[in-house]
Amino acid sequence: MPLHEAKDRWHSALQEIHFSRGAKPATIGVEEALGRITAAPVFAAHSSPAYNAAAMDGIAVHFADLASASDAAPVRLGKGQFQPVNTGNNLPREFDAVVMIEDVHHVSEDEVELAIPATPWQHVRTIGEDIVATELIIPEGHSIRPIDQGAMLATGVTRVPVKEPPRVVVIPTGTELIQPGTTPQPGQIIEFNSRILAGYLNEWGAVARGAEPVSDDKEQLKSAIRKAAAENDIVIINAGASAGTKDFTATVLAELGRVVVHGVAIKPGKPVILAIVDNTPVIGLPGYPVSAILTMRLFVHEMIFDFMGMKPPAPQWTAARMSRPMHSAMGVDEFVRITLGQVGEELMATPAGKGAGAVMSLVRADGILTLPTGSEGVGAGETVQIELLRPLSDVQSTLVAIGSHDNIIDILANLLHKGKKTIRVSSAHVGSMGGIMAIRRGEAHIAGSHLLDEESGDYNVSFIKRFLQGIPLKLINLCYRQQGLMVAQGNPLGITGFMDVAEKNFSFINRQNGAGTRLLTDKTLGDLGVNPSQINGYDHEEYTHMSVAAAIADGSVDCGMGILAAANALNLDFVPVAEERYDLIIPDRFMQDSKIVALLELIRSSEEFAELVTNLGGYNLRDCGRLMYEQ
Amino acid sequence: MPLHEAKDRWHSALQEIHFSRGAKPATIGVEEALGRITAAPVFAAHSSPAYNAAAMDGIAVHFADLASASDAAPVRLGKGQFQPVNTGNNLPREFDAVVMIEDVHHVSEDEVELAIPATPWQHVRTIGEDIVATELIIPEGHSIRPIDQGAMLATGVTRVPVKEPPRVVVIPTGTELIQPGTTPQPGQIIEFNSRILAGYLNEWGAVARGAEPVSDDKEQLKSAIRKAAAENDIVIINAGASAGTKDFTATVLAELGRVVVHGVAIKPGKPVILAIVDNTPVIGLPGYPVSAILTMRLFVHEMIFDFMGMKPPAPQWTAARMSRPMHSAMGVDEFVRITLGQVGEELMATPAGKGAGAVMSLVRADGILTLPTGSEGVGAGETVQIELLRPLSDVQSTLVAIGSHDNIIDILANLLHKGKKTIRVSSAHVGSMGGIMAIRRGEAHIAGSHLLDEESGDYNVSFIKRFLQGIPLKLINLCYRQQGLMVAQGNPLGITGFMDVAEKNFSFINRQNGAGTRLLTDKTLGDLGVNPSQINGYDHEEYTHMSVAAAIADGSVDCGMGILAAANALNLDFVPVAEERYDLIIPDRFMQDSKIVALLELIRSSEEFAELVTNLGGYNLRDCGRLMYEQ
Repeated sequence: MPLHEAKDRWHSALQEIHFSRGAKPATIGVEEALGRITAAPVFAAHSSPAYNAAAMDGIAVHFADLASASDAAPVRLGKGQFQPVNTGNNLPREFDAVVMIEDVHHVSEDEVELAIPATPWQHVRTIGEDIVATELIIPEGHSIRPIDQGAMLATGVTRVPVKEPPRVVVIPTGTELIQPGTTPQPGQIIEFNSRILAGYLNEWGAVARGAEPVSDDKEQLKSAIRKAAAENDIVIINAGASAGTKDFTATVLAELGRVVVHGVAIKPGKPVILAIVDNTPVIGLPGYPVSAILTMRLFVHEMIFDFMGMKPPAPQWTAARMSRPMHSAMGVDEFVRITLGQVGEELMATPAGKGAGAVMSLVRADGILTLPTGSEGVGAGETVQIELLRPLSDVQSTLVAIGSHDNIIDILANLLHKGKKTIRVSSAHVGSMGGIMAIRRGEAHIAGSHLLDEESGDYNVSFIKRFLQGIPLKLINLCYRQQGLMVAQGNPLGITGFMDVAEKNFSFINRQNGAGTRLLTDKTLGDLGVNPSQINGYDHEEYTHMSVAAAIADGSVDCGMGILAAANALNLDFVPVAEERYDLIIPDRFMQDSKIVALLELIRSSEEFAELVTNLGGYNLRDCGRLMYEQ
Repeated sequence: MPLHEAKDRWHSALQEIHFSRGAKPATIGVEEALGRITAAPVFAAHSSPAYNAAAMDGIAVHFADLASASDAAPVRLGKGQFQPVNTGNNLPREFDAVVMIEDVHHVSEDEVELAIPATPWQHVRTIGEDIVATELIIPEGHSIRPIDQGAMLATGVTRVPVKEPPRVVVIPTGTELIQPGTTPQPGQIIEFNSRILAGYLNEWGAVARGAEPVSDDKEQLKSAIRKAAAENDIVIINAGASAGTKDFTATVLAELGRVVVHGVAIKPGKPVILAIVDNTPVIGLPGYPVSAILTMRLFVHEMIFDFMGMKPPAPQWTAARMSRPMHSAMGVDEFVRITLGQVGEELMATPAGKGAGAVMSLVRADGILTLPTGSEGVGAGETVQIELLRPLSDVQSTLVAIGSHDNIIDILANLLHKGKKTIRVSSAHVGSMGGIMAIRRGEAHIAGSHLLDEESGDYNVSFIKRFLQGIPLKLINLCYRQQGLMVAQGNPLGITGFMDVAEKNFSFINRQNGAGTRLLTDKTLGDLGVNPSQINGYDHEEYTHMSVAAAIADGSVDCGMGILAAANALNLDFVPVAEERYDLIIPDRFMQDSKIVALLELIRSSEEFAELVTNLGGYNLRDCGRLMYEQ
């Protein structure tokens, strides 16, 4: 079913149960009302000021007494003709003006002399000057701010009618779910979706909570949904919406009530279920967190506001240029997580990863690109509209690093963000050649690279001359680092090197083409006279040192090439192969950019940085921050 | 002392006490961490996925078994050669690929047939694909979102170090203060500032509370400050900062610690005091709510973020055109409350009122204009930069009504805002002629007007022809309404009409020049042959019916001209003088504007509107919504 049709059907179903504006009013104390939504207009109970009040420190007078006052002939007022007043004091009924203290000359304790005439009601805040009793303070449907609380309290309003937000429960389903804090055994899944989903719902204005997980048992699920529908305004079932053998949410919902929509042509989120049980909307979300969140944004976000009789806030959009082409799955509305980077004049958009289970891709995402049904995708360089997930100002303070992966990047990301610098680092690990190409296309501020020129024995320079010709830039060293074979803890297979791997047919995991580590692997194999076909797993590729290390730690493979820091991080053993140089390529046009200035200052002079890097193991900072080449 | 010097001195004083980054870390459960700020970087405790997992429902296979599979020669797999898996299931170690259910042909219970070869690791989420143990999830100084909670829980992180926000207490001072909910007697002031101020502080990220008011007693104040400074990270004293006789906050602070700044050349907010007591910053804010809030924005907002080691969010600015000139007080930085209105292509800025006690002016304000020291002000039509107090999208959904005041405007304001319309009404009460001039200058969408042409006996048309020549517009009736003399409840003076007021010298309160009611007053006096000089208080002007009514209700004056609805609102008696017509002037260029369309639909067909207006009293809607004239 196309998205627009699913939305239409769902809106009709919600209309039938009078879901819209279902919020009940409740009267609460004004002091507890911050952020709540008014259920009725609020009118002033009394005027403010509630009486004629002195607006200055000085004396209350009758203006007519001073009609003739001048420097030459000051007027003297005696007892009863004036009265001292402070700012805010009630103006005694017999007076009709205030003279400020600076203009009052005290002749004696009971007598003053004034040299300037007064106008009627000068320096007096007359009754109701700010607001008169019965006048409107704030309308219905208004989100109460501190100043609104002040205005209500100032005019005698102490209780205010507000709308009760919708009660929402998120029920996770699945026998495989375990609680956070437990290490998952194979086949188990940590249940955290209900927390994320409830968090978003609460941010949108609902009162949401996650329920205990329900096992894959039809009767248990049935009674859980029936109970939840009776106690809540919206029920969300998480998982159980795909076609897997244990997924019977749709069957249960059909038995309990009416399934309005099952399956929508969207990606991610296709298996969503929209149903009505006992006049309560029940939404079955897909199990993958990213699918669940994006689907909830599509169908439930608007419902929260609808329930409160409000319009949802307008989404924030920005135009950006695609850094690479993006092909669309035909026949579906596709929602693509996007990272944005302000690189020079251009705001560049890059897909942030596609996996529906990839929570980190949504942690890193700055926005969402919608590719509607019928779109064939977008080309590289095309300008697209992105719905923002964080303020544009955050995006603009992002340092875009594309290129080779190194564990130091995480250290930089943290040190550049903490404190008042608040520079975000967006890093894409696409290998050294990928970084050089990103610099060429103007997509990155910096690229990390460790490309060895086999002929000269030098790093990076020959590649820069070839691929970045004509681009003024600096090549600045970040570190030297140990590369080697990562093997299981204790090296149980006694792996001694690549020759060993080839001869004994140990399983290997490789890095992708264009990675500096792949080049180093190939050079090492060449030096040893080993043919890639002799290596079991040469075609099995991963994109980072850490992914390779994880596969070895898991026991999926016996060994892989990577840096000592990655091996140390996962407690692996390490068979050294070579020390290599790792540099940063920085175009000259960014050398004065405050983010780059902060980065260079950090790597050149921060003791904290040096200490943290040293602790990772396998690094040498002898040239860190040094200019290695420029053009 | 100029603002920049005060800021410099204050920053130095805060540096001396190491105030910046004073936030202590605390470790809390991830589930309680929404919106908190990380005190340290957070790294994945284990990988996600934690094992190789099926990414599809289907069967796990060994890819090599399917190498020869094709439509012509499908491959048959028997017991042990495949295993059913659901999405998320662990991939058994002996398999290395997943074939999705749609491509599986079940031959028997134990046998499947496959017609497509598989690639290694297809439809498998490999261990650490999303994030590998020890990799950075979020850096220090990051505000935790639901998705961050999810990422932490997904990778085995259940507790997170966050920064403890600053504890702030707001101490109101003054014997005249009473608690909200009590009707103030002359000289008493409802204490609500501490609630507003604490509300803002909490919104900025502090943990703030209002304290019990302290009387005007030096020793009591002293001990209250000493105790507060010991228990809090910031202490705010409200009021007691001006030069009034009971204001000894500065003296007390000088005795307890060091006064860094007393008095800053800003308007409002001049008497602010910045002091350090026992290494705790103590800020004395002026008593007027608007001064207190604006001063707190200037000096305390930044401190909250400073304490947390963060940069404050960038203020949002917009360019707008001044609708009238604004003269600046020389020698001070002046902060002017501004209402904004999108009228056609132009964003118009209008000062929202100047009184430091005028809470409603800040309720209504959309932004702040800064007139720096040395500026002589800004001219009408000049483009200025406004710091926004609400999202620009809210401003753009504002219907700008300038002109004559009528109580129906409040009803319209509420009915247009409630529900999903969320149209805000910004109304300025400047009299009928003021409204006509606002239409001429393109500052308003509509103007309410009830200008009687003495010669023709008609309303508004002759004034439109004269002052709005050449502007295509519609004149649409809103109502007919009763005008008369408002007198105290029960009419104790037995006032019968203007003749009576003149003869018996009753005190009167008038409306400003250009108000339709002023014209009606003058016509009535003329018809009666009464000279304005015979009316006691003819020169005493107010701007709205309600302000006039408030002065009468208060007993400040005996009578004033106004509409029955205003008299009814404040329980006044009413001596009818005339029925008059009240119309809306709407330029043609706004007739298709969705806000105007909604307004006209409302007055023409809403039963709720008609009922609410009728309840006000003195209205007749016989021509409501009818076109009276067009040009």
